[in-house]
Amino acid sequence: MSSQDVLIHSDDPCHPANLICTLCKQFFHNNWCTGTGGGISIKDPNTNYYYLAPSGVQKEKMTPEDLFVMDAQTLEYLRSPKLYKPSACTPLFLACYQKKDAGAIIHTHSQNAVICSLVFGDEFRIANIEQIKAIPSGKVDPVTKKPMALSFFDTLKIPIIENMAHEDELIDDLHKTFKDYPDTCAVIVRRHGIFVWGPTIDKAKIFNEAIDYLMELAIKMYQMGIPPDCGIGEEKKHLKMASP
Amino acid sequence: MSSQDVLIHSDDPCHPANLICTLCKQFFHNNWCTGTGGGISIKDPNTNYYYLAPSGVQKEKMTPEDLFVMDAQTLEYLRSPKLYKPSACTPLFLACYQKKDAGAIIHTHSQNAVICSLVFGDEFRIANIEQIKAIPSGKVDPVTKKPMALSFFDTLKIPIIENMAHEDELIDDLHKTFKDYPDTCAVIVRRHGIFVWGPTIDKAKIFNEAIDYLMELAIKMYQMGIPPDCGIGEEKKHLKMASP
Amino acid sequence: MSSQDVLIHSDDPCHPANLICTLCKQFFHNNWCTGTGGGISIKDPNTNYYYLAPSGVQKEKMTPEDLFVMDAQTLEYLRSPKLYKPSACTPLFLACYQKKDAGAIIHTHSQNAVICSLVFGDEFRIANIEQIKAIPSGKVDPVTKKPMALSFFDTLKIPIIENMAHEDELIDDLHKTFKDYPDTCAVIVRRHGIFVWGPTIDKAKIFNEAIDYLMELAIKMYQMGIPPDCGIGEEKKHLKMASP
Amino acid sequence: MSSQDVLIHSDDPCHPANLICTLCKQFFHNNWCTGTGGGISIKDPNTNYYYLAPSGVQKEKMTPEDLFVMDAQTLEYLRSPKLYKPSACTPLFLACYQKKDAGAIIHTHSQNAVICSLVFGDEFRIANIEQIKAIPSGKVDPVTKKPMALSFFDTLKIPIIENMAHEDELIDDLHKTFKDYPDTCAVIVRRHGIFVWGPTIDKAKIFNEAIDYLMELAIKMYQMGIPPDCGIGEEKKHLKMASP
Repeated sequence: MSSQDVLIHSDDPCHPANLICTLCKQFFHNNWCTGTGGGISIKDPNTNYYYLAPSGVQKEKMTPEDLFVMDAQTLEYLRSPKLYKPSACTPLFLACYQKKDAGAIIHTHSQNAVICSLVFGDEFRIANIEQIKAIPSGKVDPVTKKPMALSFFDTLKIPIIENMAHEDELIDDLHKTFKDYPDTCAVIVRRHGIFVWGPTIDKAKIFNEAIDYLMELAIKMYQMGIPPDCGIGEEKKHLKMASP
Repeated sequence: MSSQDVLIHSDDPCHPANLICTLCKQFFHNNWCTGTGGGISIKDPNTNYYYLAPSGVQKEKMTPEDLFVMDAQTLEYLRSPKLYKPSACTPLFLACYQKKDAGAIIHTHSQNAVICSLVFGDEFRIANIEQIKAIPSGKVDPVTKKPMALSFFDTLKIPIIENMAHEDELIDDLHKTFKDYPDTCAVIVRRHGIFVWGPTIDKAKIFNEAIDYLMELAIKMYQMGIPPDCGIGEEKKHLKMASP
Repeated sequence: MSSQDVLIHSDDPCHPANLICTLCKQFFHNNWCTGTGGGISIKDPNTNYYYLAPSGVQKEKMTPEDLFVMDAQTLEYLRSPKLYKPSACTPLFLACYQKKDAGAIIHTHSQNAVICSLVFGDEFRIANIEQIKAIPSGKVDPVTKKPMALSFFDTLKIPIIENMAHEDELIDDLHKTFKDYPDTCAVIVRRHGIFVWGPTIDKAKIFNEAIDYLMELAIKMYQMGIPPDCGIGEEKKHLKMASP
Repeated sequence: MSSQDVLIHSDDPCHPANLICTLCKQFFHNNWCTGTGGGISIKDPNTNYYYLAPSGVQKEKMTPEDLFVMDAQTLEYLRSPKLYKPSACTPLFLACYQKKDAGAIIHTHSQNAVICSLVFGDEFRIANIEQIKAIPSGKVDPVTKKPMALSFFDTLKIPIIENMAHEDELIDDLHKTFKDYPDTCAVIVRRHGIFVWGPTIDKAKIFNEAIDYLMELAIKMYQMGIPPDCGIGEEKKHLKMASP
């Protein structure tokens, strides 16, 4: 085995090279990355190498051989697959690693994200739903020093930025959201999809699932006339049709 | 194998420790417990031990090693996984075991439950649908002494309680529904999800599936203008658009 | 192996005892027979024995051991599982075998069937859709003597009967539809589901899939304002919103 | 093994005979080819033989033995399965091979295609969505000489032709779209489904997935009042209900 291939071959299903492939397949069946859309990057917590899904590959058929591996210090590719180009998302993934201390980033073309970007203005908002408690608040518990989640009574706010012709052109707006929304773990790109990150791939996956659930729910609420961030007990007066 | 691990290791796919994992995976793919939401508890009919899914775990990846086991008499944990905390639902599960003689409890973040909780007031109601016959009526057949199901002409009523910041705060309202709805096998928590129980895990699973089917159908009926509990033959006069 | 068990044990995946289980599992994941709803019966073309799914079983977990086997001549059970009762649908299945020369019958609680039964009156109608060509017309090709399918320009009509408290009470209305719709291969039961039959289980499965596809499409058309049986080119004038 | 069977037996999962079966099964579970609808044809890049799915087969159960193989020069069948007839789509597939230099053609009964054909006139249009970038523009990069994809700011246009009683009657309209839309990789057939082709089966699959995603999105946009080809920033003024 070449020294490059050692980087991607492991019997451990939780090795980044294996996990990216498993999750891309799972996300494909969620309609999140059909037609080669979307992607995942994971930082190996042992080596600090970045593992990156390539551009243009069918996400449900991806294998570890298809992955790029990058050194986090030099930003040089330690391994490049012969058949593929690096994903155009790579600069965005690097920004999340460098500015948000991310351990993994998930990018999908979720239709829920695209629809929310058409309905909402500059910010997706939903409040008072149990699933919000899966999302980090950005605050730290003063006693345990652990990161605190949003509470049921909080409003989840996710910034929405405009899409550009090429993904690397999103970088300025991405950096701006890092400043304007220092606690967000996600950015919606209008008419495009969503980027979600977390300190580990497990966390990023949980955040992404919870946010997609909340976007799906927000669309259903909107279609029934209920503002997704309306107060508890206010739903009925917004309903387009009388409560049964 | 330690004495604690004996509790969770079995070759029998119907052993509670295995069944909780199998069903959590199945429910994950139903969008009922993504983002670590939801949970299941089963009472082992042989030992009367309670098996409980932990807090914060990805439900489709759960293994028997992740489970808590509790003694039904002392309410002490016979086994605690190192990595996880007990679910905040535990007091609610215990209430169902103790007050409703449950053999298993299923908790999901089903979007159908959340949407029904936004549209309905204090009670979910649906009538005159065949699937209602899967739900117990609370009555006992005077001849066979077996529990009787609802009939096609009955109205299924499920109480809806308000959500709180923490799940253990739901306990008072849960006890109140036990009094006000002595025959119910489920409680919807507004903007949160649903709890469903039964004398066995098989029954609880069937009740949960049937109720979710009925909530999904009720939402579709509501969206077309038909009150889900309207009389047979009354549908057409409620339709928003003329019958084709 | 007992003589009764010989009836249900076969290595052939197309043996009726195996095929009923495979299809029930597949239909469960289509949301057609959750909560123990629905069922399948197949006539073994070699023995003329009827294989019948039992009442109350979780359809995705069913095994050949759970099946009833009935002699087509004597209508006596050649095999009865210890744990289950015969399905209440059995008299309806027998009527399809005896009056329609069916080789298999599929019964589902498809929500598309229930919704169509709420929107349509006594007859489901859809016209001018390619998938209609999967449904038999009841006519025979004068040259090849083979059964002919509906054409693209035909209107598929499926009778809708009222539900009763118990499934065996549907028998009179079922017989009436056999007379009024001599060419139909399906009957919708209002607020309940659908029965579909065919000369073989393969045909019954294809008819059921095509009809469910057409009911799903009809609901979408209805929701956009288009009568599902409207003429080709008439769609646009029915649209609730202007064509984009 | 007979010389005919050599054509369809291979251990390579990417051999056309294996790939057609794998993809038909995958597409069946997408609701794209239930009830025997739809089909796939692949040209073997090594032999130039056409592999064709037969008529009337259950697409999720298809095996290599069910396939037709045709010589691209003589258009004679090198292999015909005993049980099946050639698909009525065969002349349409041949037209795509001969006039569009296709390497593979996918035909589905996608409900998204049928609904779009009911809502749109002679052309499906969607603009300014990231997923559009998966579709070829028909232009060639002047430097790299590689085919260029549509850009985010482009409008994807897919012609819609009228359905006929028999699929071979579509041939004239198909040829007309080849002239009127020289760059299209797909044709929607009203009230029927869609044909999508590409230089390889991998490309055809990616195009088909991306187009289905875009048709699904267009229907959702239309239902909310947003013209799928409206300008960026114009969405809000089209919304049926106010932005939340």
